[in-house]
Amino acid sequence: MRISPLIDRLVEALQTLPGVGPKTAVRTALHLLQHNRPGARALAAALSEAADRVMRCRSCRTLSETELCAICANPKRDPKLLCIVESPSDIVAIEQSGAFGGRYFVLHGRLSPLDGVGPEELGIVDLAERVTGQGAEEVILATNPTVEGEATAHYIAEALRGTGASLSRIAHGVPVGGELEYTDGGTIVHALQGRRVVS
Amino acid sequence: MRISPLIDRLVEALQTLPGVGPKTAVRTALHLLQHNRPGARALAAALSEAADRVMRCRSCRTLSETELCAICANPKRDPKLLCIVESPSDIVAIEQSGAFGGRYFVLHGRLSPLDGVGPEELGIVDLAERVTGQGAEEVILATNPTVEGEATAHYIAEALRGTGASLSRIAHGVPVGGELEYTDGGTIVHALQGRRVVS
Repeated sequence: MRISPLIDRLVEALQTLPGVGPKTAVRTALHLLQHNRPGARALAAALSEAADRVMRCRSCRTLSETELCAICANPKRDPKLLCIVESPSDIVAIEQSGAFGGRYFVLHGRLSPLDGVGPEELGIVDLAERVTGQGAEEVILATNPTVEGEATAHYIAEALRGTGASLSRIAHGVPVGGELEYTDGGTIVHALQGRRVVS
Repeated sequence: MRISPLIDRLVEALQTLPGVGPKTAVRTALHLLQHNRPGARALAAALSEAADRVMRCRSCRTLSETELCAICANPKRDPKLLCIVESPSDIVAIEQSGAFGGRYFVLHGRLSPLDGVGPEELGIVDLAERVTGQGAEEVILATNPTVEGEATAHYIAEALRGTGASLSRIAHGVPVGGELEYTDGGTIVHALQGRRVVS
């Protein structure tokens, strides 16, 4: 419904946020204007400054406002390990697990010829250079286990064959805490193929 | 987790939105920066302009960037009917039902002496003047059926006793589409007390 031109515009703009529909947008707009104008102004400033100044890290292509992101600039991160992910949110997930101390490379997507996404868009053309340049000894392919993610992993494996680095793929299987009974067929196939000898 | 100072600030600011926690905030921030910077800029502009320019309607106190809101400025709205609500979102809900053609008055809260919210904060002191001024013949008390909302309705009824306008309270009962079996006791009490003779 129409409230007033400025509020309607705010309601419309709030719907660009993922998961926010018309009802949530109206509730959010009225809440901010009634109870939290400083919060609304702070959010506006944070949004426009981030939109203007955040770019891609020169080295790993993740989102960062500095030329080198915090991980690439950290001398403690092991350059011998390079993990290739589809998006910056994958880095967030892996960092939160605390299980990885190497460096990253962000593709910003996966190969999808129909959408015009080829090796150039994903930065794969410079990847071999990056791998030899930083002296990486192992490259972990952490693209998602979708058809396109698997195709991208295969393509990268081919592209890096000449670098001498060993290649690995993250394990896919039954998630920890999950139950076999409720696991889909594709995951069970991966879990069986990736089985390990119990010592 | 820390991503970069600007992105962290955006993640923090996004959490001022109702219902947005740390995980959703990270996902939203990265989504906007990766895929929708124009949307982020448009949202920033809409937020700051609304925060700066939206004020209260001089007549009904709802949120509006014009001195008189669209409803108060509309000569087709019946001045003989005045509906008193707690917040602008109540107006949105009533307007969407299409069942009301009168005018509104927004309290922006309910009486709550412990929180320092008295008749002055809610504009009740000028309400009698407003009622006689616009020649309202019926005042509908549409505060919420909570303890504080009921107390506010009672207080307003007392304050308006001298105006000659008739006072009514919106009906509270079993919601349409609801089932008696799943209705709480308080609502059933209201539904029984408010029963109407079937003609």
